[in-house]
Amino acid sequence: MKSVIDILDLSVQELYEMMDVAIDIDAHPAKYAHKCDGKKLATLFFEPSTRTRLSHEAAMLELGGSVIGFSGAQNSSAAKGESVADTAKTVSCYADIIAMRHPVEGASLVAANNASIPLINAGDGGHCHPTQTLADLLTIYREKGTLSGLKIGMCGDLKYGRTVHSLINAMTRYEGNEFVMISPQELALPDYAENALRKAGVPFKVTTSLEESIPELDILYMTRIQKERFDDPDEYERLKDSYSLTVDKMEMAKPDMAVLHPLPRVNEISVKVDDDPRACYFKQCLNGKLMRMALILKLLDEAGTPGHSGYWEKGEVHMGGICPNKKCIMRTEQELEQKYYIDEEGNKRCLYCDTLILN
Amino acid sequence: MKSVIDILDLSVQELYEMMDVAIDIDAHPAKYAHKCDGKKLATLFFEPSTRTRLSHEAAMLELGGSVIGFSGAQNSSAAKGESVADTAKTVSCYADIIAMRHPVEGASLVAANNASIPLINAGDGGHCHPTQTLADLLTIYREKGTLSGLKIGMCGDLKYGRTVHSLINAMTRYEGNEFVMISPQELALPDYAENALRKAGVPFKVTTSLEESIPELDILYMTRIQKERFDDPDEYERLKDSYSLTVDKMEMAKPDMAVLHPLPRVNEISVKVDDDPRACYFKQCLNGKLMRMALILKLLDEAGTPGHSGYWEKGEVHMGGICPNKKCIMRTEQELEQKYYIDEEGNKRCLYCDTLILN
Amino acid sequence: MKSVIDILDLSVQELYEMMDVAIDIDAHPAKYAHKCDGKKLATLFFEPSTRTRLSHEAAMLELGGSVIGFSGAQNSSAAKGESVADTAKTVSCYADIIAMRHPVEGASLVAANNASIPLINAGDGGHCHPTQTLADLLTIYREKGTLSGLKIGMCGDLKYGRTVHSLINAMTRYEGNEFVMISPQELALPDYAENALRKAGVPFKVTTSLEESIPELDILYMTRIQKERFDDPDEYERLKDSYSLTVDKMEMAKPDMAVLHPLPRVNEISVKVDDDPRACYFKQCLNGKLMRMALILKLLDEAGTPGHSGYWEKGEVHMGGICPNKKCIMRTEQELEQKYYIDEEGNKRCLYCDTLILN
Repeated sequence: MKSVIDILDLSVQELYEMMDVAIDIDAHPAKYAHKCDGKKLATLFFEPSTRTRLSHEAAMLELGGSVIGFSGAQNSSAAKGESVADTAKTVSCYADIIAMRHPVEGASLVAANNASIPLINAGDGGHCHPTQTLADLLTIYREKGTLSGLKIGMCGDLKYGRTVHSLINAMTRYEGNEFVMISPQELALPDYAENALRKAGVPFKVTTSLEESIPELDILYMTRIQKERFDDPDEYERLKDSYSLTVDKMEMAKPDMAVLHPLPRVNEISVKVDDDPRACYFKQCLNGKLMRMALILKLLDEAGTPGHSGYWEKGEVHMGGICPNKKCIMRTEQELEQKYYIDEEGNKRCLYCDTLILN
Repeated sequence: MKSVIDILDLSVQELYEMMDVAIDIDAHPAKYAHKCDGKKLATLFFEPSTRTRLSHEAAMLELGGSVIGFSGAQNSSAAKGESVADTAKTVSCYADIIAMRHPVEGASLVAANNASIPLINAGDGGHCHPTQTLADLLTIYREKGTLSGLKIGMCGDLKYGRTVHSLINAMTRYEGNEFVMISPQELALPDYAENALRKAGVPFKVTTSLEESIPELDILYMTRIQKERFDDPDEYERLKDSYSLTVDKMEMAKPDMAVLHPLPRVNEISVKVDDDPRACYFKQCLNGKLMRMALILKLLDEAGTPGHSGYWEKGEVHMGGICPNKKCIMRTEQELEQKYYIDEEGNKRCLYCDTLILN
Repeated sequence: MKSVIDILDLSVQELYEMMDVAIDIDAHPAKYAHKCDGKKLATLFFEPSTRTRLSHEAAMLELGGSVIGFSGAQNSSAAKGESVADTAKTVSCYADIIAMRHPVEGASLVAANNASIPLINAGDGGHCHPTQTLADLLTIYREKGTLSGLKIGMCGDLKYGRTVHSLINAMTRYEGNEFVMISPQELALPDYAENALRKAGVPFKVTTSLEESIPELDILYMTRIQKERFDDPDEYERLKDSYSLTVDKMEMAKPDMAVLHPLPRVNEISVKVDDDPRACYFKQCLNGKLMRMALILKLLDEAGTPGHSGYWEKGEVHMGGICPNKKCIMRTEQELEQKYYIDEEGNKRCLYCDTLILN
């Protein structure tokens, strides 16, 4: 059963096909309005995420299907101590496809391995959130006409930002892209991510100044800087304005630069920028829904075909290893077998959360 | 985009048309069962209100549409600090019409101004709750055959009761109505509301006795008296029974008096009154659903037509002013422009929550 | 209006008919896909129970109907002090059938008595949970080809387990069944239940050893043993493993023994048993959905026909009596008339929660 846990579970070719479908849905919605008649999506949200949940639900409804589910752990059997695996097996009796959000890293993979229906990872802790990246990719593709040869500024929290890492991974697969990493030092891109870019031969530069780098960008991907990330609150107060996008800073940008943001936005983009035609973050919402429609169609189409799942391509899988990540599903799921794989550089990584296993 | 924030956003003529549609829906439901096929209602309930939410959802489903949404703030992006405006813009990508409930006064207007789809205010704090008044109006119309020439008793909490003020405003537009305001002094109708009635030339009297006034009433509108409203709990204990409707008191009323209550009822109407044919509060539920169906049909019908929104008729709008209401959306929404209008009496009022601005 | 509060509200004949329908639905789902077009199920869950809720919702959707409702008390009007009766009357305006879960015993009966649409009891405190028993019965019927002549082991918490008592009651109606009651002494079947079995002439034995009794069983019904039930935590630690089903214990069982569990499972069945073809607890989920479909169809079919409700057959009903059960709806519902009935043995029992009234 094919499921999508990580954006890399979808090949470049598959992504192009899905974008074509999404654009066709937007142009001819009536053609798709009954594609999923009689099908049910289960939205299993073990933590609240209204936007992501509503986007999946709207997607399914616009395909003619219907929705069951829950929107927070307090309303789920998890409160009674049920395992993720059992929830997945049970819900497979009730629905045709699952969209799952869970605070624990690797939970979506464990669920996918136990479900007898396809599963979409709608976010598993700080690990993966592939459908956000689908929204990002379609937005870039529609705004710029290409996914190649772009200078992309990633601004804000590059250390913890799950969507940042995922978009970098995704855009690295297209030719000729360059990155500008814009953040305070406290929130710089982790070393392993920089190393991966170097190894892949992708040019990037690192800067602390949004103002200086904005003129050269084709894409500006904004994210939120959270006060809690700073040891020194004064440091946050001193820095936050320089990573906030204002009308003034927009004046320095190219006339066709596209501004993206995964939302929700708090104050890192001024409301006054919303009227600028280069502000694409609400279009991203629409694109996210369209790509989720394309993904649901694809996974239900392929639900009959056997076995392939992208994550097995990570590398050779072995039993054993002890995952050091305290937020990994290994720590909470009962009787879950510890497994690891060998990555391209020969390192052991936890199969569930991809954390490096040292020993 | 036309939205309904306040009952006064709908003209007397529009209300009559909607009541005709509601009555026709009740008689011929099959005619309407597919009017909203493929349409989606988003129920954005930032605080719980089961009855109001289910009524909107049932209304949309009976028109053939479907529903997405949330039923309490803990499950929404608001917990992450998202503005009402951004939520409205986002949800406009997912649905065709919004029904929104929010604890903050004026929140629904801000949402309506930012949504690209019509919005129904399903209650914004103590400010407005127009669809409850729609239920009240249809109930009076069906029970009495008219909205004019009625003697209407308003009983209970007339000070804080949002539905009371809204129904008074609505009924004042029809000719020949008189009011009897029945409440303890602690919960009497506010001065400004009394003044508005005097100015409009609507006869009313004020009394503390339900028992004495019940014989003359055509309509008795009951509301709950909450213990928390009293400075002195003993005073509450001493008074509560006299504002409770019992079988004994019903015997003193006209044989065709109609009893209304916005529900939920706690103990202000005895359960034994339910079997009296004059008890109309559960019919109100049904009528509420029918009027919401008529409203959804109307707003979706008019969704293509430009710009008119009732609230602009309040008076001339200006920038500036400082709203003194601590529960106003001005206090919480980021970068929201302060605006006021000049009411009929020449006073400045906050555009969002209608609070008087003194200065 | 017929409602189902207790499994005994359905006759043996009715249960066979429903099982036939359920099996036919499984074989020919398309035949049933539009049986409930335009109908609405209200899921009123005053406490969370994801599995039960989703099963009812999936059932209704697969019949072509739609769903409204809530999934926890914090989102309902109950928080404002509304009575169960009023909620039932109100929701009768919005839906065609109700599935209700409530923490208070007897709440579902009070709701059914006030609703003008059929009601399915989806669990009322520790009292009844008939649709779980429907799932159990169909699973036994499909696995063994009969509901008669079986040796049934009930294992775990036989004292508090609502599903245990309900299944015993249900299976006692079929000929030739025998029970083996397997539990620690702290959690043994209550005396009144043992007496009822003796009176009905149903053979049973009582044991503390799962290992010794497993070889002779046709059915093993597992339930969870909760640590909180033990006065002495050490006693729990000492005992728990012996009531846990493992691959080793399965080797001692008959090759065609069926293992059932009402789920959620915590650790009383090893995950490794899941792959054993005799493990039927996930099939139970599917069967539960199918039986709920059959029940919805039956109740909507009969919704036009007057008055009969199974619980009136309990015995002659009288006004008065004081129910000693602190979790009974009598304690919380306003103006609810105390009623009792005389059971087969001449005892007075509370009409709402069936508790013995001593006086």
